[in-house]
Amino acid sequence: MPPIMATPATRVDDDSTATRSALAARYAEVRAYSLALAAPLSAEDACVQSMADASPAKWHLAHVTWFFETFVLEAHEAGFAPHHPAFRELYNSYYNGIGPQYPRPRRGLVTRPSLEAVREYRAAVDARIADLLESTDLPAAALTTIELGLHHEQQHQELLLMDIKHLLSLNPLAPAYSETPLVPAAAAPALQWTAQAGGLRELGHDSASGFAFDNETPRHRAWLEPYALASRLVTNAEYLEFVDAGGYRDARPWLADGWATVNAEGWRAPLYWREIDGAWYEFTLHGLLPLDPARPVCHVSHYEADAYAQWRGLRLPTEFEWEAASPAPAAVQTPRLHPPAATTAGDDAYGSAWQWTASAYLPYPGFRAAAGAVGEYNGKFMSNQMSLRGSACLTPPGHARHTYRNFFYPHQRWAMTGIRLARDL
Amino acid sequence: MPPIMATPATRVDDDSTATRSALAARYAEVRAYSLALAAPLSAEDACVQSMADASPAKWHLAHVTWFFETFVLEAHEAGFAPHHPAFRELYNSYYNGIGPQYPRPRRGLVTRPSLEAVREYRAAVDARIADLLESTDLPAAALTTIELGLHHEQQHQELLLMDIKHLLSLNPLAPAYSETPLVPAAAAPALQWTAQAGGLRELGHDSASGFAFDNETPRHRAWLEPYALASRLVTNAEYLEFVDAGGYRDARPWLADGWATVNAEGWRAPLYWREIDGAWYEFTLHGLLPLDPARPVCHVSHYEADAYAQWRGLRLPTEFEWEAASPAPAAVQTPRLHPPAATTAGDDAYGSAWQWTASAYLPYPGFRAAAGAVGEYNGKFMSNQMSLRGSACLTPPGHARHTYRNFFYPHQRWAMTGIRLARDL
Amino acid sequence: MPPIMATPATRVDDDSTATRSALAARYAEVRAYSLALAAPLSAEDACVQSMADASPAKWHLAHVTWFFETFVLEAHEAGFAPHHPAFRELYNSYYNGIGPQYPRPRRGLVTRPSLEAVREYRAAVDARIADLLESTDLPAAALTTIELGLHHEQQHQELLLMDIKHLLSLNPLAPAYSETPLVPAAAAPALQWTAQAGGLRELGHDSASGFAFDNETPRHRAWLEPYALASRLVTNAEYLEFVDAGGYRDARPWLADGWATVNAEGWRAPLYWREIDGAWYEFTLHGLLPLDPARPVCHVSHYEADAYAQWRGLRLPTEFEWEAASPAPAAVQTPRLHPPAATTAGDDAYGSAWQWTASAYLPYPGFRAAAGAVGEYNGKFMSNQMSLRGSACLTPPGHARHTYRNFFYPHQRWAMTGIRLARDL
Amino acid sequence: MPPIMATPATRVDDDSTATRSALAARYAEVRAYSLALAAPLSAEDACVQSMADASPAKWHLAHVTWFFETFVLEAHEAGFAPHHPAFRELYNSYYNGIGPQYPRPRRGLVTRPSLEAVREYRAAVDARIADLLESTDLPAAALTTIELGLHHEQQHQELLLMDIKHLLSLNPLAPAYSETPLVPAAAAPALQWTAQAGGLRELGHDSASGFAFDNETPRHRAWLEPYALASRLVTNAEYLEFVDAGGYRDARPWLADGWATVNAEGWRAPLYWREIDGAWYEFTLHGLLPLDPARPVCHVSHYEADAYAQWRGLRLPTEFEWEAASPAPAAVQTPRLHPPAATTAGDDAYGSAWQWTASAYLPYPGFRAAAGAVGEYNGKFMSNQMSLRGSACLTPPGHARHTYRNFFYPHQRWAMTGIRLARDL
Repeated sequence: MPPIMATPATRVDDDSTATRSALAARYAEVRAYSLALAAPLSAEDACVQSMADASPAKWHLAHVTWFFETFVLEAHEAGFAPHHPAFRELYNSYYNGIGPQYPRPRRGLVTRPSLEAVREYRAAVDARIADLLESTDLPAAALTTIELGLHHEQQHQELLLMDIKHLLSLNPLAPAYSETPLVPAAAAPALQWTAQAGGLRELGHDSASGFAFDNETPRHRAWLEPYALASRLVTNAEYLEFVDAGGYRDARPWLADGWATVNAEGWRAPLYWREIDGAWYEFTLHGLLPLDPARPVCHVSHYEADAYAQWRGLRLPTEFEWEAASPAPAAVQTPRLHPPAATTAGDDAYGSAWQWTASAYLPYPGFRAAAGAVGEYNGKFMSNQMSLRGSACLTPPGHARHTYRNFFYPHQRWAMTGIRLARDL
Repeated sequence: MPPIMATPATRVDDDSTATRSALAARYAEVRAYSLALAAPLSAEDACVQSMADASPAKWHLAHVTWFFETFVLEAHEAGFAPHHPAFRELYNSYYNGIGPQYPRPRRGLVTRPSLEAVREYRAAVDARIADLLESTDLPAAALTTIELGLHHEQQHQELLLMDIKHLLSLNPLAPAYSETPLVPAAAAPALQWTAQAGGLRELGHDSASGFAFDNETPRHRAWLEPYALASRLVTNAEYLEFVDAGGYRDARPWLADGWATVNAEGWRAPLYWREIDGAWYEFTLHGLLPLDPARPVCHVSHYEADAYAQWRGLRLPTEFEWEAASPAPAAVQTPRLHPPAATTAGDDAYGSAWQWTASAYLPYPGFRAAAGAVGEYNGKFMSNQMSLRGSACLTPPGHARHTYRNFFYPHQRWAMTGIRLARDL
Repeated sequence: MPPIMATPATRVDDDSTATRSALAARYAEVRAYSLALAAPLSAEDACVQSMADASPAKWHLAHVTWFFETFVLEAHEAGFAPHHPAFRELYNSYYNGIGPQYPRPRRGLVTRPSLEAVREYRAAVDARIADLLESTDLPAAALTTIELGLHHEQQHQELLLMDIKHLLSLNPLAPAYSETPLVPAAAAPALQWTAQAGGLRELGHDSASGFAFDNETPRHRAWLEPYALASRLVTNAEYLEFVDAGGYRDARPWLADGWATVNAEGWRAPLYWREIDGAWYEFTLHGLLPLDPARPVCHVSHYEADAYAQWRGLRLPTEFEWEAASPAPAAVQTPRLHPPAATTAGDDAYGSAWQWTASAYLPYPGFRAAAGAVGEYNGKFMSNQMSLRGSACLTPPGHARHTYRNFFYPHQRWAMTGIRLARDL
Repeated sequence: MPPIMATPATRVDDDSTATRSALAARYAEVRAYSLALAAPLSAEDACVQSMADASPAKWHLAHVTWFFETFVLEAHEAGFAPHHPAFRELYNSYYNGIGPQYPRPRRGLVTRPSLEAVREYRAAVDARIADLLESTDLPAAALTTIELGLHHEQQHQELLLMDIKHLLSLNPLAPAYSETPLVPAAAAPALQWTAQAGGLRELGHDSASGFAFDNETPRHRAWLEPYALASRLVTNAEYLEFVDAGGYRDARPWLADGWATVNAEGWRAPLYWREIDGAWYEFTLHGLLPLDPARPVCHVSHYEADAYAQWRGLRLPTEFEWEAASPAPAAVQTPRLHPPAATTAGDDAYGSAWQWTASAYLPYPGFRAAAGAVGEYNGKFMSNQMSLRGSACLTPPGHARHTYRNFFYPHQRWAMTGIRLARDL
């Protein structure tokens, strides 16, 4: 299991030596966390790509380094020369403003550079960034981009875990990422409803209050009707009732596109559930385990989350309802490899499973993407995807945020996704 | 060109003889309009399906009849017997609550029943509905369903024209649906901006004010920031500037999914534009014509509409902004087979081309689908699609409505779709 | 049922008036037969294409006319002008030497020209060919090409029936092409083995003995080991034993590509068999009928024919074994719409169902395709297909030939194909 | 470059101690050769699968071991227990008689067992086979199966090189398998024609003369017309003339299926040719090198080989013509990683590139597959593939044979395939 890391995000409010020094410490910590996550993986594990949506761990380790090299070193380092001329294209994910990209579905074919060579790439860029952060004439824009790069790397830390889980799940030996056993959870508390009055609310990130991705801005007003939010996520036991009641064989609760997907893909349970000799198991990063009734259901698509809610006569919250009703995350978060059962009302808003909302991932009123290639970070994906809120057990410590907007296509379910219900009042 | 039809939608406020009589007249009129639209088509034209999204004209004529047979006659006719036992499945579009459906992509294979037999099916059901409407003990629910059926048939009237246009466009002879010539339009007026103050607005259909589809309800409040709406749709001349500037070869203005579609499909202009010996033409229901610079661009996808707006530094309006800033449609509308050029500010809100919005097609706060199979009408499609507002030249007279929500997938462009721009104030 | 037509193929040995006159009579007869086959079809039936392998009846009627227009009139008519300038591309099947082709999978989209217009095209070309055949200075090459065109049209007559059968089979009403009832056959005679000594045999068409396609030439020698051929085709009753024994669920008798196809396509019986409430039916051109145990199994792929033979511990004959052991066809053949049961040994070599052989469709030693575009007729398809021998009930009278080589891909089964077994001696 | 290995195949004519001892030595040698071939590969290189047709090197190393474990140890070892219970399914390639198979397209996802664990699997099975070969009561059938297993492993040695070449070719760094430089070849000798009289010839393997695969049997007679065979393979320089003359843009020389493949796949040269700044290069196991005009063209499909021959007015030989005109391979063969240029007439029949023939890969007259699961080895693939003759530079020493029949689908070109021309006399 990865180490606990409690340092909050750096504030890059000025370009003082103290700020640069704090950022350097934060940089070292975040970069080390990536290596710690990859430590249990063999070179083989780190090289293979299990589907087009996923990337190899080695690619993640290289791409986040490419981000610093391309957006920080190339812009701000005197006499910049690339670590390797082929990497500019090889490790570019999707930035058309930078140039062409090695095809995404082929990322798993790149057996060379080796994992060892990628670790050397990381070390070389780390040394150059450290040097840069010691220079007193570094412009503030460099600090801002470094901070963005650290948040970017944290996103890929979670993707790395999602992707390695998917890869290992397809292995007939069902190997575990972590040898630490996972103890069955105590019973989940009863589900309660927290009433919300609605009205005209301010939502989104206030740009004066520290780092956020551009898609969380600008802060704006929205009108909400009265509603109630469930006190905890839906459990495996509850979701199993839906499965046992024939939920995957009855078109009625499903969105039309969801029902088409169920049939085209042959879905009959969440992604990592396995029925063996009449008993349900779940593949986890701790290996294949009996399905734990008390823990939150996870790895469900938006279609499944919506169908489950419909089947219960309920619905998913909008992302605005979620934000208006939820607290800010705790300062210290404990990363885990599987969602824990809730213990008290609302304690699973963060650190358990991302929560699908009823909101499409679209720009906020007045949204403007950043100029240049880095402006491709979020805005161009505002189509066909749904917003998710909160954070997951796989989310690195210090990365969760009250206004954070995660997004996936409604059919995707390899992310650590769960269900929080809502209803009208 | 189809006849002008000016009768507004019936109000089914009671089950009096007068109401039934008015509904019977309206029924006859709407049903006749379908036949008038199909009149220029040969049996061959009416049988073929040009793609999975489209349906044969013959299928449209039969399916709308099936709607009345299944939801009205079967529910309310004493001693009901089906016109043909195979039709229940053959002409069911997507109502899982009714039972299985003949596969959509095979609709064009059904050469028998013939077009003539489908006309007989229409006549037989029409006679039975007419009988029913003379019975004094007909429940109000029957009247409501008949009215829904008429609005349903009007939707298919527009689909019939969209689908036959697509079919004819693939014919190397470029045959015209209508032999009436289309005269080039006068120049379009200059584009102006109409400022809107925003604030807390009431939107959606008030259920006390006549018919609307369930997806337009309930009426609810939304907060809008100040904005401005363009006084007319984007013209072919304006869109051609985007094409000529390399708009289809530059990733930057495009949403990521849009850019992927451009490349996968080889798009380089709107659906029906043809470049022949260096000059642009447009396939229309009047045949292949030189591209008319003054008329609105049409048959663009949401991706193209959004990219065009981005390229201009502008954006699409949300559907709430559109509704708050637009008038109700005129009582009398003139159907046309191709969008006319705007003449005065805002006169193209209806009757020209549907206007893509920046809003995903999602349920309004408090939305409830109708009970039973008819509840599948709209709700289950609230996923992955975008809302369009206004109406099109192909929309039958009397069918447009201020709160009307049309919806298509963002890549689709065989509907009569255009672009109205917006910007923040 | 189509009329019996007993005239044998014309011999075009000279360009005398008598030869031209005989050819004109033959031309009229063959051309009329096509129209007779299309007579039971509505314009809708004749327009639709049920799969990419099939073509609409209207297309067949037009394409065979195009063959005469392109290869005869354009080459030999003074002052040639095309009937319609668009037809050269629209009705070109696959002759790259002539120019581009309208895409094959779109043939069913061409609702215009109408069936009526295609009949007019036929009549116009017929009149021009008749005029040509009256001219005394017509070169012998024209006569040869006209004769080729008649054999070509006969091939399309059989394709027309195969294709319309496939289309009607997908119609949920299971409409019959012919209203004439099909009487159950008497029991098939017992299967016997006719021993063949083998040795060095002469095979293929002798170019001095009348018309043949180029792929039947040149006549050449081949060495055959001793073998035996079954006296009749495999019956439905026999094939049903294979089905009932789980033949479609056991990989062992199948070729690897065959087994992959069985699973990918979900095959569990021949193409037109239907299991309804535990009883087997077969869709025929006479409609849906109870499976007739005495008639030959038909519409099986090469994979199924081979697996059946393997399962019986037998094999398919090579095309050389077939030719060496089979008689020439009778002078007068009775076309039928479904294979009759055999009555005496070997009487089903022709006029029942094509017989899959164990031979790949490859060039004979010394084969040379004709020069020019017409050389694309056969040679370029000598890849990936298997030879079939004999002829089928759907084959037009006068078209069967002892050395005839039909060919299809091993997975195809919409042709009227059956199984004749062989074994080593 | 792999070591030279000169030991010929063992003759398993009796079960004497001497035979067992010779077989044990041969076993050790062949097994060691596999490890030598894999030695230049990292664990990452050995794990990844570049396409469904290819397999990871690690899979090859494990599967050939599975063959010995399943067909030898399980059948003949007292108290047999599997090395790992999951391997029976995981490393079964296509033997339905053994049971289900882990899906072929997922072979590259199996990061665990590691390459190291697979090496341990090999060592464990090797020790058990060695023990078995010391037992005096070992049935002769065991020796025969071990010999088959060694020939099987040699086939996979060549596949391993083909597959790793394909993988490395997709890497943007174009890494070399071997660091040994490849020196440009001297000019190829002029192409000459060796005349063959034809007549009745005996062909195929005589079962009394040592090991052969079942598909080479039985020996049988075939009649050949007079012909001539080219004295050497087609060179890159000659093939480049075809490319430069627009061979990939002109349909005429191509088989219809070949032309469809050219267009669907965008082919414009052999698989590993690259055009960079107007000059041609070829990716080889020695890295990316300038195209060597004197060496044989390789990695062409059957379609390309056939089109090239057609374009020259020539043809490919049948496999019988090839066999009748070719010598037996030399006792000692030198494996190479790339085809050498011919030096004297006919010296490239073996050890250069496999030679596509005009013959479909079909059973010889009287062919019988072996009983049981091992009978799936060859027979079930006798469909849709073409025979190739000779051997390639990648073929392990001692593996070539005069009657050897290799086979691939006509579109495949990742095998080391070349072109030998033929013509009629």
